[in-house]
Amino acid sequence: MNFCSNCGAKVTLRVPPGDSVPRHMCDNCGTIHYRNPLLVVGTIPEWEGRILLCKRAIEPRLGYWTLPAGFMELGETTAQAALRETLEEARARVELGEAFTLLSVPQVNQVHLFYRARLIERKFAAGEETLEVGLFGEDEIPWDEIAFRTISTTLRYFFSDRKEGKFHVHAGEILPQK
Amino acid sequence: MNFCSNCGAKVTLRVPPGDSVPRHMCDNCGTIHYRNPLLVVGTIPEWEGRILLCKRAIEPRLGYWTLPAGFMELGETTAQAALRETLEEARARVELGEAFTLLSVPQVNQVHLFYRARLIERKFAAGEETLEVGLFGEDEIPWDEIAFRTISTTLRYFFSDRKEGKFHVHAGEILPQK
Repeated sequence: MNFCSNCGAKVTLRVPPGDSVPRHMCDNCGTIHYRNPLLVVGTIPEWEGRILLCKRAIEPRLGYWTLPAGFMELGETTAQAALRETLEEARARVELGEAFTLLSVPQVNQVHLFYRARLIERKFAAGEETLEVGLFGEDEIPWDEIAFRTISTTLRYFFSDRKEGKFHVHAGEILPQK
Repeated sequence: MNFCSNCGAKVTLRVPPGDSVPRHMCDNCGTIHYRNPLLVVGTIPEWEGRILLCKRAIEPRLGYWTLPAGFMELGETTAQAALRETLEEARARVELGEAFTLLSVPQVNQVHLFYRARLIERKFAAGEETLEVGLFGEDEIPWDEIAFRTISTTLRYFFSDRKEGKFHVHAGEILPQK
């Protein structure tokens, strides 16, 4: 950030009075510009025990597999964002279940939230940002070609909880790999 | 948003190619400026069955009671944000429990996340943004003076689950009042 989005003047990075973190501040109009982590919301769509994955058509991680998910938009609830992303990326309609994973990824300033979900019918197709969509059983998951660690973590919790016969909410974080 | 925070040129609001939502776009440097909902994270600090509440020293809802909470910062996990806000607003150190409520508030573009928590010692004080801090039993909660509906909703779920003897995660939304 170089310029004030309100008045167009140059901004400077410093700690506002009473604050403890440097912010982009505008000396012309007085606006303090805050930046905060973003929520990425998606689903774990299930059909007869198999999970719907999408092969990414866009960077980052083009060609890798992911669960349908994306940035939450203004005016949405997390549930609406999850349904919208599933429809956009996998052209799939789901019935939403419980919130399942809530994973902070502080190194990219994101929090990823995944809901369990059931496909309403066996109907799906690649959306704009997807190359290919498919259903995968636990032993068919392409573990070496999963796009993000929040996805592999969510899938591992899912299969582990399913084996146990009881689903829990998993809140945690994905820290940088050493 | 009137000006591009990258180059300082005027922005225009329109739907980018391949998108479905109007964004602030800069024709000078090509930057697309996305705006997204923000995460507010806090705790339900418990001490011998009573809950720590803070009386707000700032607007909005100055003088009303709240749970310690605030906007998640860049580089944090949700758990770190919850601990930091509890320390800042109530000068209290807590041991974090499970994520408890995850409530979308689409009319203000926020998602509120509260963790259950236990005070490590009976020690707390008003922080910068707080007038007063106190411990409240279930029958002492000032229900008519609670700052936000996410707070009263979280407290109601908390007492109801406690009565039941089992805490669940509650994901949902707070919609505009008619």
